[in-house]
Amino acid sequence: PLLPSHVKHNFSSFVARTNTCGELRSAHVGQKVTLYGWIQYQRQGLFLVLRDFQGLTQIIIPQDEACSHVKKLLSNAPVESVVRVTGIVSLRPPGQENPKMPTGDIEVKVETAEILNSCRKLPFEIKDFIKKSEALRMQYRYLDLRSSQLQYNLRLRSQIVMRMREYLCNLHGFVDVETPTLFKRTPGGAKEFLVPSREAGKFYSLPQSPQQFKQLLMVGGLDRYFQVARCYRDEGSRPDRQPEFTQIDIEMSFVDQGGIQRLIEGLLQYSWPEERGPITTPFPSVTYEEALADYGTDKPDTRFDMKIVDISDFSRSLGIRFVQNALSYPHGTVKAICIPQGMFLGQEQQSELVQALKMQVDDVVLLAAGEHKQCSALGSLRVESADLLEAAGLVLRDPTAFHFLWVVDFPLFLPKEENPTELESAHHPFTAPHPSDMTLLYSDPTKVRSQHYDLVLNGNEVGGGSIRIHNAELQRFVLEKVLKEDSEVLSHLLDALEFGAPPHGGIALGLDRLISLIIGAPSIRDVIAFPKSFRGRDLMGSAPDYVTPEELESYHIQVSWPVAEAEAKKN
Amino acid sequence: PLLPSHVKHNFSSFVARTNTCGELRSAHVGQKVTLYGWIQYQRQGLFLVLRDFQGLTQIIIPQDEACSHVKKLLSNAPVESVVRVTGIVSLRPPGQENPKMPTGDIEVKVETAEILNSCRKLPFEIKDFIKKSEALRMQYRYLDLRSSQLQYNLRLRSQIVMRMREYLCNLHGFVDVETPTLFKRTPGGAKEFLVPSREAGKFYSLPQSPQQFKQLLMVGGLDRYFQVARCYRDEGSRPDRQPEFTQIDIEMSFVDQGGIQRLIEGLLQYSWPEERGPITTPFPSVTYEEALADYGTDKPDTRFDMKIVDISDFSRSLGIRFVQNALSYPHGTVKAICIPQGMFLGQEQQSELVQALKMQVDDVVLLAAGEHKQCSALGSLRVESADLLEAAGLVLRDPTAFHFLWVVDFPLFLPKEENPTELESAHHPFTAPHPSDMTLLYSDPTKVRSQHYDLVLNGNEVGGGSIRIHNAELQRFVLEKVLKEDSEVLSHLLDALEFGAPPHGGIALGLDRLISLIIGAPSIRDVIAFPKSFRGRDLMGSAPDYVTPEELESYHIQVSWPVAEAEAKKN
Repeated sequence: PLLPSHVKHNFSSFVARTNTCGELRSAHVGQKVTLYGWIQYQRQGLFLVLRDFQGLTQIIIPQDEACSHVKKLLSNAPVESVVRVTGIVSLRPPGQENPKMPTGDIEVKVETAEILNSCRKLPFEIKDFIKKSEALRMQYRYLDLRSSQLQYNLRLRSQIVMRMREYLCNLHGFVDVETPTLFKRTPGGAKEFLVPSREAGKFYSLPQSPQQFKQLLMVGGLDRYFQVARCYRDEGSRPDRQPEFTQIDIEMSFVDQGGIQRLIEGLLQYSWPEERGPITTPFPSVTYEEALADYGTDKPDTRFDMKIVDISDFSRSLGIRFVQNALSYPHGTVKAICIPQGMFLGQEQQSELVQALKMQVDDVVLLAAGEHKQCSALGSLRVESADLLEAAGLVLRDPTAFHFLWVVDFPLFLPKEENPTELESAHHPFTAPHPSDMTLLYSDPTKVRSQHYDLVLNGNEVGGGSIRIHNAELQRFVLEKVLKEDSEVLSHLLDALEFGAPPHGGIALGLDRLISLIIGAPSIRDVIAFPKSFRGRDLMGSAPDYVTPEELESYHIQVSWPVAEAEAKKN
Repeated sequence: PLLPSHVKHNFSSFVARTNTCGELRSAHVGQKVTLYGWIQYQRQGLFLVLRDFQGLTQIIIPQDEACSHVKKLLSNAPVESVVRVTGIVSLRPPGQENPKMPTGDIEVKVETAEILNSCRKLPFEIKDFIKKSEALRMQYRYLDLRSSQLQYNLRLRSQIVMRMREYLCNLHGFVDVETPTLFKRTPGGAKEFLVPSREAGKFYSLPQSPQQFKQLLMVGGLDRYFQVARCYRDEGSRPDRQPEFTQIDIEMSFVDQGGIQRLIEGLLQYSWPEERGPITTPFPSVTYEEALADYGTDKPDTRFDMKIVDISDFSRSLGIRFVQNALSYPHGTVKAICIPQGMFLGQEQQSELVQALKMQVDDVVLLAAGEHKQCSALGSLRVESADLLEAAGLVLRDPTAFHFLWVVDFPLFLPKEENPTELESAHHPFTAPHPSDMTLLYSDPTKVRSQHYDLVLNGNEVGGGSIRIHNAELQRFVLEKVLKEDSEVLSHLLDALEFGAPPHGGIALGLDRLISLIIGAPSIRDVIAFPKSFRGRDLMGSAPDYVTPEELESYHIQVSWPVAEAEAKKN
């Protein structure tokens, strides 16, 4: 049962079926029932197994002469044909019960039947589908959706979101507000899809999140906003990303960091599926500094230990030149992780690990100097070691455990990668500085911590948010003086902050990722009905696709063909 | 109260306020409370009125010397500044109660206060806002959102949608499935926005509805699907349309027309706001033919009578030549409507009506021949007459009445406007023919009725749907033989129908229109947080906007400037 027991769906309202295929029990014996479903399996004109989204029911085909037309109909129907059957629920003969099947005590003796739609020969057997290439499964997504796994995933997703809505809307007075997806480019929005308008040269942009709108709603006195928001990000080809994705988007007025954290803990606890066991709140919290120091990453997987240890003092006495060298730098440290039962490792795994780290035999893993990069290397090493240990049979990370973790006190700004003397926002320019670091903003902005918080689940970032800047002067200072950006493009937001904007903050949860982790699915594609391939293509309907030059005319655009293609077209 | 009384929001969870500004009553007297809100009004340093989304509370400013800093703070804060006040709830002095104000029995005597954000001088008074031009209101939408009307509209919308979800998801086992908005162009999809991809010449398209996906979900065995779906339609400039809009999108397997109708009646009854009075079900139903004959439109407003009457027999005896002429045609009829108390009309209104119809004085309204066009003219006349009668003080259409109506048995195909010898789908090519008219499909498709149904409320179409074609052969026949369309672009759907597609049908309700009718708002812009202008512009953030040629490069497109602009740029 996916839902608390007080919720009772009526799956047979408004249709002619009396029951679903997962419903009948011995208590129904003697009842006349009508079922609709797909033929999963049929044997020698004797019986068949009927399937719908709820389960399987065994159907006995009548053998007497008077019903020969029914027998003929059902015996000749290909598997995956859709049928209606009407008949009497009966106990299975003693010894023929199937305890593995929820409906395994009964069978339905058919009286009348109808083939609603016949299925043409499948390009593969449904039950082998999971073994087929993902490209083939995505091309025939509508067949893959019939699998009990995808049925379960999509239904669980729907129900978790419904529970979240109940919590936000019914219990805590949040307002579900839809915000536009046709907006304009945000500064630095290089990953935003463009949508040409009918005004020559003017484009809408599909926003990466409703960030500006939710802040404007707070200025508008909406007080508590949420939206299950479709967001867009054009990242080209990146594994396990989707060009469109969904976030649980939340914003509140008059709230502080702790308030948002308690809200989210309550939200997850309330919507958590019973069958995954309870989760405990409040979630533990670490600072960004601590996370990097202990785990070498800002999204630590805390289901296992193997923390990074500072062994600078020990190393000083070793007399190894490159270690001494590293320690002589201002922030020089030597750190290590201990791989428990590492020797458990077979020869092959050991050498894999050695290879992954480009280690020489007999080396000891010591990484030094430049604390940030050093730690992230050790952090990756930690996770890779865990993968290898588990591949070798050790259970380090309980697959049924859910370790939530808040990561807080991020830096507000980071040096730009391409030019480290300039600063960029670690998250986005609307993030408020940490109240204790306000004066540093004007003296040494690199040292300012932010009021940003990330939510991490089993080593995956599943959410992030912040308390926002509500003071126009401060916002302008950050944009113009620290980030050296043209604030003109955000003038509507700066204006809004001057007209009595309340203090506010919020968060967004990545729904696709969260659901896939709850289910234990390997990819977010497993919790999306019609996902795109990692190149952003729809393999079922072949999108994106070519359009005619005439269709582009009303949008005042034309294709700039790459030289090679243009040449080819010419010849 | 917008919601049934069993739903109790906690508006003060996770924040430091103890109450909202609409909550305090005499039962709270003596309590120490903390409120957050905007200064609505302040008088001579004596008191102020604090406002939030829930209401207003009178705040008494302390006058004693010890609190002079609090007095100074609150007296100097401009209206629409955001403040926190903490103080004691007290009864108002006898005679000073305000029975019009829900909190009118009490006031809060401030002990401490804090200005959270000061408001700069407003470009207009908030209370005069409604009188300002709509363009100005849309530019400062975040200020307009503070009005009690927009707060009410957006909150009611949120709660109605939440109730719809409860009905569909919790009571009837529907699955909320998100479908892609980046897809490919559908045949004839001239109104679909394009989204350039990073593959040269290839474009996504923003779909006008999830039609294909919801049918594919049925093929995938999802059985019952719904989605509050964002849809897109590029219609250029049309009044009271939005380039993006929302529909309650529903699809079911194994259902017939009656099943969908009962579902929707139940849905509306369940989600209907108590304060609008009950609605009765089932809704009445008329055929398309009857609607045209009686009301001259396929979306009749049945709140008032004034039906169109066939006066052919009477007219035959009149001996007027053009009437005789009209009656001599095969489908020639003469029809009329009677305007009750039409003489109530003042001279001015009479002449307006005369002008609207291009009538001469003393003419009698008689329209003849070509039944469809004839009726639609009389249909417009009927509504215009009602407008005029109401402008003159007569109440024809009860503004508190909600008349739902099903219109059924639409024609499946209509002659193309530009070439009447060819046919196009009256709705879309997936609509199933009426079972009684199946044979006509092959002999005389123009006579085939469809299994399409529209839901009409007070003369507005608020929904439409149909039973779909689930047979691949029939679908191919309609596409290729009747509509003469290239079915290749829909090959994925035709394939899907061959793999055991169940019989299915569905509907979509236009949420923006429905909510605006329930509220009685003049425009759908009044129930959308950030609407676009009728030219599709966002007047607050200035979208759409220009982008640099560099930004277009990765999408392999360039702007084709209209000649005049290109010339201007050259010079």
